[in-house]
Amino acid sequence: MNISDFDKAEILVQALPYIREYNNKIVVIKYGGNAMISDELRDRMMTDIVLLSLVGIKVVLVHGGGPEITKVLDKMGKESTFVNGLRYTDQETAEVVQMVLAGKINKDLVQLLVSRGGRALGISGLDAGLIKASKKTDSGDLGFVGNIDSMDVQVITDMLEKGYIPVVSAIGAGDGVVYNINADAAAARIAAELHAQRLLLLTDVKGLLRDKDDESTLIPEVKVSEVQALKNKGIISGGMIPKVDCCVEAVRRGVKRTTIIDGRVEHAVLIEILSDDGVGTMFV
Amino acid sequence: MNISDFDKAEILVQALPYIREYNNKIVVIKYGGNAMISDELRDRMMTDIVLLSLVGIKVVLVHGGGPEITKVLDKMGKESTFVNGLRYTDQETAEVVQMVLAGKINKDLVQLLVSRGGRALGISGLDAGLIKASKKTDSGDLGFVGNIDSMDVQVITDMLEKGYIPVVSAIGAGDGVVYNINADAAAARIAAELHAQRLLLLTDVKGLLRDKDDESTLIPEVKVSEVQALKNKGIISGGMIPKVDCCVEAVRRGVKRTTIIDGRVEHAVLIEILSDDGVGTMFV
Amino acid sequence: MNISDFDKAEILVQALPYIREYNNKIVVIKYGGNAMISDELRDRMMTDIVLLSLVGIKVVLVHGGGPEITKVLDKMGKESTFVNGLRYTDQETAEVVQMVLAGKINKDLVQLLVSRGGRALGISGLDAGLIKASKKTDSGDLGFVGNIDSMDVQVITDMLEKGYIPVVSAIGAGDGVVYNINADAAAARIAAELHAQRLLLLTDVKGLLRDKDDESTLIPEVKVSEVQALKNKGIISGGMIPKVDCCVEAVRRGVKRTTIIDGRVEHAVLIEILSDDGVGTMFV
Amino acid sequence: MNISDFDKAEILVQALPYIREYNNKIVVIKYGGNAMISDELRDRMMTDIVLLSLVGIKVVLVHGGGPEITKVLDKMGKESTFVNGLRYTDQETAEVVQMVLAGKINKDLVQLLVSRGGRALGISGLDAGLIKASKKTDSGDLGFVGNIDSMDVQVITDMLEKGYIPVVSAIGAGDGVVYNINADAAAARIAAELHAQRLLLLTDVKGLLRDKDDESTLIPEVKVSEVQALKNKGIISGGMIPKVDCCVEAVRRGVKRTTIIDGRVEHAVLIEILSDDGVGTMFV
Amino acid sequence: MNISDFDKAEILVQALPYIREYNNKIVVIKYGGNAMISDELRDRMMTDIVLLSLVGIKVVLVHGGGPEITKVLDKMGKESTFVNGLRYTDQETAEVVQMVLAGKINKDLVQLLVSRGGRALGISGLDAGLIKASKKTDSGDLGFVGNIDSMDVQVITDMLEKGYIPVVSAIGAGDGVVYNINADAAAARIAAELHAQRLLLLTDVKGLLRDKDDESTLIPEVKVSEVQALKNKGIISGGMIPKVDCCVEAVRRGVKRTTIIDGRVEHAVLIEILSDDGVGTMFV
Amino acid sequence: MNISDFDKAEILVQALPYIREYNNKIVVIKYGGNAMISDELRDRMMTDIVLLSLVGIKVVLVHGGGPEITKVLDKMGKESTFVNGLRYTDQETAEVVQMVLAGKINKDLVQLLVSRGGRALGISGLDAGLIKASKKTDSGDLGFVGNIDSMDVQVITDMLEKGYIPVVSAIGAGDGVVYNINADAAAARIAAELHAQRLLLLTDVKGLLRDKDDESTLIPEVKVSEVQALKNKGIISGGMIPKVDCCVEAVRRGVKRTTIIDGRVEHAVLIEILSDDGVGTMFV
Repeated sequence: MNISDFDKAEILVQALPYIREYNNKIVVIKYGGNAMISDELRDRMMTDIVLLSLVGIKVVLVHGGGPEITKVLDKMGKESTFVNGLRYTDQETAEVVQMVLAGKINKDLVQLLVSRGGRALGISGLDAGLIKASKKTDSGDLGFVGNIDSMDVQVITDMLEKGYIPVVSAIGAGDGVVYNINADAAAARIAAELHAQRLLLLTDVKGLLRDKDDESTLIPEVKVSEVQALKNKGIISGGMIPKVDCCVEAVRRGVKRTTIIDGRVEHAVLIEILSDDGVGTMFV
Repeated sequence: MNISDFDKAEILVQALPYIREYNNKIVVIKYGGNAMISDELRDRMMTDIVLLSLVGIKVVLVHGGGPEITKVLDKMGKESTFVNGLRYTDQETAEVVQMVLAGKINKDLVQLLVSRGGRALGISGLDAGLIKASKKTDSGDLGFVGNIDSMDVQVITDMLEKGYIPVVSAIGAGDGVVYNINADAAAARIAAELHAQRLLLLTDVKGLLRDKDDESTLIPEVKVSEVQALKNKGIISGGMIPKVDCCVEAVRRGVKRTTIIDGRVEHAVLIEILSDDGVGTMFV
Repeated sequence: MNISDFDKAEILVQALPYIREYNNKIVVIKYGGNAMISDELRDRMMTDIVLLSLVGIKVVLVHGGGPEITKVLDKMGKESTFVNGLRYTDQETAEVVQMVLAGKINKDLVQLLVSRGGRALGISGLDAGLIKASKKTDSGDLGFVGNIDSMDVQVITDMLEKGYIPVVSAIGAGDGVVYNINADAAAARIAAELHAQRLLLLTDVKGLLRDKDDESTLIPEVKVSEVQALKNKGIISGGMIPKVDCCVEAVRRGVKRTTIIDGRVEHAVLIEILSDDGVGTMFV
Repeated sequence: MNISDFDKAEILVQALPYIREYNNKIVVIKYGGNAMISDELRDRMMTDIVLLSLVGIKVVLVHGGGPEITKVLDKMGKESTFVNGLRYTDQETAEVVQMVLAGKINKDLVQLLVSRGGRALGISGLDAGLIKASKKTDSGDLGFVGNIDSMDVQVITDMLEKGYIPVVSAIGAGDGVVYNINADAAAARIAAELHAQRLLLLTDVKGLLRDKDDESTLIPEVKVSEVQALKNKGIISGGMIPKVDCCVEAVRRGVKRTTIIDGRVEHAVLIEILSDDGVGTMFV
Repeated sequence: MNISDFDKAEILVQALPYIREYNNKIVVIKYGGNAMISDELRDRMMTDIVLLSLVGIKVVLVHGGGPEITKVLDKMGKESTFVNGLRYTDQETAEVVQMVLAGKINKDLVQLLVSRGGRALGISGLDAGLIKASKKTDSGDLGFVGNIDSMDVQVITDMLEKGYIPVVSAIGAGDGVVYNINADAAAARIAAELHAQRLLLLTDVKGLLRDKDDESTLIPEVKVSEVQALKNKGIISGGMIPKVDCCVEAVRRGVKRTTIIDGRVEHAVLIEILSDDGVGTMFV
Repeated sequence: MNISDFDKAEILVQALPYIREYNNKIVVIKYGGNAMISDELRDRMMTDIVLLSLVGIKVVLVHGGGPEITKVLDKMGKESTFVNGLRYTDQETAEVVQMVLAGKINKDLVQLLVSRGGRALGISGLDAGLIKASKKTDSGDLGFVGNIDSMDVQVITDMLEKGYIPVVSAIGAGDGVVYNINADAAAARIAAELHAQRLLLLTDVKGLLRDKDDESTLIPEVKVSEVQALKNKGIISGGMIPKVDCCVEAVRRGVKRTTIIDGRVEHAVLIEILSDDGVGTMFV
């Protein structure tokens, strides 16, 4: 496409009100799903984050693991057992989770951000006691899967103050034991503790759909008070339930706006933050 | 023109290397000529400056007067006398110059910047003793026209540190007398004292042309060492000479790059700073 | 007069309790009237302000316009129309007001302060969005005369913190329109927002007189609660009413003491601040 | 052993001169070997580091990998190939190295330090561009093994300033490729860049021995100028050569004292820093 | 006694939890009695204080006078008169008290601390208006003996912030008159104003004893609410009453724990702070 | 004397250039002689110092002892022995010197300054290791009289930064021994280390006289290069020699101007600093 210098400048200018609005504000992004697997989507997203950081937005990136963990477990010949359809995390698996999250995915993201000019610093929920966790017991015994007990976000505050982009692996510790933590929950809690302006949860769907088979029925905005009704109607169902619960919780604890966005869209984050065009469902 | 969200995002991303390069760097812009007269050009430029400021560039705006001064003098029925083709500035004219520069143009610019979200603060060379001047005597007696003797840019440094966009009127004082100062010279000296990364002088021509009647002969880049030869050949001549001398002086005192750009081009400053496409002649 | 070194030292020492009392405190001075017109009074007052600043008092100088504006309007052959005895400010007049206030009077004061060793910085209500205003409608249509809607004194706080003497022109902006603002009102509001220790309003009368024809009937101190009674008796009347209202408002918003002082007295400000001898009427 | 309160206090007092000497000074510790494998030695060492940190010493911990890497490679059924006796690091191995260092060992150390009250923060040479590296070519093609090209220790300085204990994994990046870095070399370079007071390299030997089979022939102190002679005599030989070279390099770049200490000794670091009794060979 | 390096290190490590607990916390120590007279006890205590200071505890040392004052008065041939068994402090005696406290004892302590590497700074209650006092009248006319009216601990806060160990002489001033102040009361009030973590009052007894003739009946901990009952039983009696009252007052004003400890025990302060073994009676 | 408000204001204004000149500059004053003995002179001088401090001058007051020491020694029935006309300071005398200087004179001055609104803080050369001294041997064995070996003025710098007026007693320590130090020498060295703007030595003579019996022959200014000639001529002689040597030394080490002024003149310091009228002999 051939765009004139004037038109390019106009497009930059159109971003001005959004840059002004989010200047020096905190935006927490939960990164996952396809945006994590496709190299192209991932590279675009890292570029977008460096850009947001350079125009004065304080971005915190939170990630989980997913397919990478399975890949390494497979290589190790480690078979998975399931409890009520959820994978049981034994001691060995827990170690692999920690290793893949904090050693592979985290550092790969950091490396991509740094190579694009971002001052990224990768930490985990273990560092400086960020995430205190204990064994999750409400869904049967899942082994080393933990709930967040409390957070000490001082380390993130310190990093933001020094101008770094914190990249956070969702693991936590309690009583000397390391637990795998749900990354959506970690992102939501971090956003709440930091009084973030925005929380973005990347997923592999277009957002909340009235008819789950028809993307044109996207609900662009949901009031927290409407959530229960939407659950009753089955519009919020399945894997969307915990995601929406994270959003609701974050809004209740003071995050201005939380959005479930479609990580399959190129530059989804940039479009969501720096334009009027939303790419998902916002909870307010 | 209809541009997709993806293309818009791509255009933002293309600006990334430039935003990174100029992050926290000082860019001094001498504002004048047509960019000053056309309301549309002026509004665009103020928007551009707010944008540059918000993406982390420390912009200093220096302005002179021109047609506005004549307009007020005319209204006052004040006739001008000329010395060697240059207007003689008597006491009454000097007062009008101060009034129009520091009271009209400066505050109009400030007001435009503020209304677009910029934290603009308008000062003059008198404030906090910024510009010390004395009577200019090298071109005959021109009355209250001054040369810059010295500068104390502490006030600009303080304002930049506090996050303001300084807008500076080119007047100075010496021995209790206020002098009209050439705005190009003021901008060049301010850039030098601040060790600015860039100095942009807006003019009403495309830049330095090999053939002054053919805009396609624009010289995009000139080494300071080549200037004398270009003067000898008559390529640098007339009103361009003092402008080029300011550029040379600024480069010699440590400004990385100084550029004469075409203020008639819409978004000239934005294109010059945030893209590969130059819109004038750069001195290095 | 021949005063010995010892007596001179004693006089300095007598100022000690006042210097101590106002050390690091904010004093807002509304400057106007004869003190503005007589060169000798003006020079003395600027010297006094530099002295107050050097002994550690944070002075903020607020000024309006008055005769200078008329002078320029006259030169431009601009005739004035009146509404209920108040001058109607049309668009052209409004521009002249801005130009004279922010360009002439403000910079002349700055220049005088700087030449006496003061670190003066002249701003207007437009700079950094200091004064937000809207059209004044309570006294008929006066054109571009505005009321103060809100203030953002951050710019003054920043300047005081950096050791500057802010000199403020009483104009404001709203919806892109610039308004002429009453300087007494601007000074009172600035004093209130800064939680100033003192507000001094310079006038051309001795203060509040019980018998307006007998200066020996000066009322040195008035309680805010007594004001209504004094208005009823006609002791506060005419042009004194809005000034007194400003004082009352400032005291109500937390300024410790506000005083209407006689700007015709040489060194009035110095005597008022650094001695026991008051030179006007104080509201507490 | 039964020690009286008085004797205990006396022992604390004996540490006073050393605490004073190293107060607010930087000590870089390369952690490896047996001290890494024995849980008891490791736990003691982490406690010692928290203690050093609490008494005001700025400790930086640098670690490599070793047996843990082999363990994971084995689990993955990955066989190693050797070049001149050195393991060839292919792409897959490089990823495992990164994962084990930054995800397993680093976070395990962080977790131990945090649980003892240390404010530990684990980073790698990738974070904030700490270690720039390029392919090592001087020992044949070893694959993804890198030399340190340059360092930007700003991130460590920032962390020390904020009171954290940096724990650093020895990997680096160049041109988007991640390299395995020798941890001794990384520690030595970090110590040099930080102008550290002390560099401690933990090994599995008692230090430099005149007769390598007789631990009673330990050389407690070596001048940098004597190193070549000791190499010629074969006293510095084998795996000790690169370690000694690191020490010499660090001393030359301004580290006051570097010591090779015996990591098999319990509390080796504490004894080395807080007492007169050395536990290895010091290079000065 | 022959203690191995390992055991020494273990003893240091045992102090870790206490060093962590008191890190950056304020501990106020009232120094007096035998600990002041015996050179050996005094030297040990000064060493202990330097050690506590170096491991990050903010120590404030408050002292009174005692035998030194009598010694100087004797030398001057000054006889003492008594009022209800308390020494009457006439003008001359008051001057001697000031001289001995602020000039002799204070500077001797400072000198000892400095020579051991402590950054000690000796002040009195007169300096920067620390202690405002007035004549004590509740025990008959004792002359220049004062009660504390108020405190301005800013000077101590400033010194702690700059890393000094404040050593404070218990004198105060009011209306230009200098008063002798009870050092226990001064220490308690300083601890309260600084929200200290601990207050230690050194005495010449083992602590509070159930049977004052049997040291084995030491009461290790007393609740503030139990004090009245202990007074009624005569367990708190005589000179212990004002000391206990100081403790109670300090606890009520927010000091976490106050302890009366036995200054005759070597390293009493170090044992009390850095171990589990208490050496007196604690009030909570 | 009856002086009008206007004249009083004019006198304040006359001090303006001097207040500006010394703003934020350091002035070291050696206080002694009659100014110390006469209560009236002393009170005036303390008021003057508070005034200088409040108008922004950083005053450091250094004092010795003199008659007060003799008074206390007399009371103690201590007889003095003399060596070459200089008093021999035995151990007991040294203790009295310390006590009187740091406990009596220092705290009396502090108390006077505080009661006039000065934030005075009294220290001695022992505090924070300010003055390192060793036994003076160049004038025979004088006992505990010391020379200054080195100074660590950090403590004075810290106090000035925090806004205090340091009052310094001239004693020093070396190898655990406390020495009496000449106060002129201490003041000169402190001024040199602080790069003070001015050093004032108060004496009981009018200054340097050409004819020592004729006060009208006062030499107002002496170049350091002229001193030797003046010594040869006997114009600088006796007790003036060490004072002049201190001045010369201070000027050589970078103090702008040092002056010997007449402490018998009321407000001598104020007149010297805040007016054109000098009251002694200045060395430049």
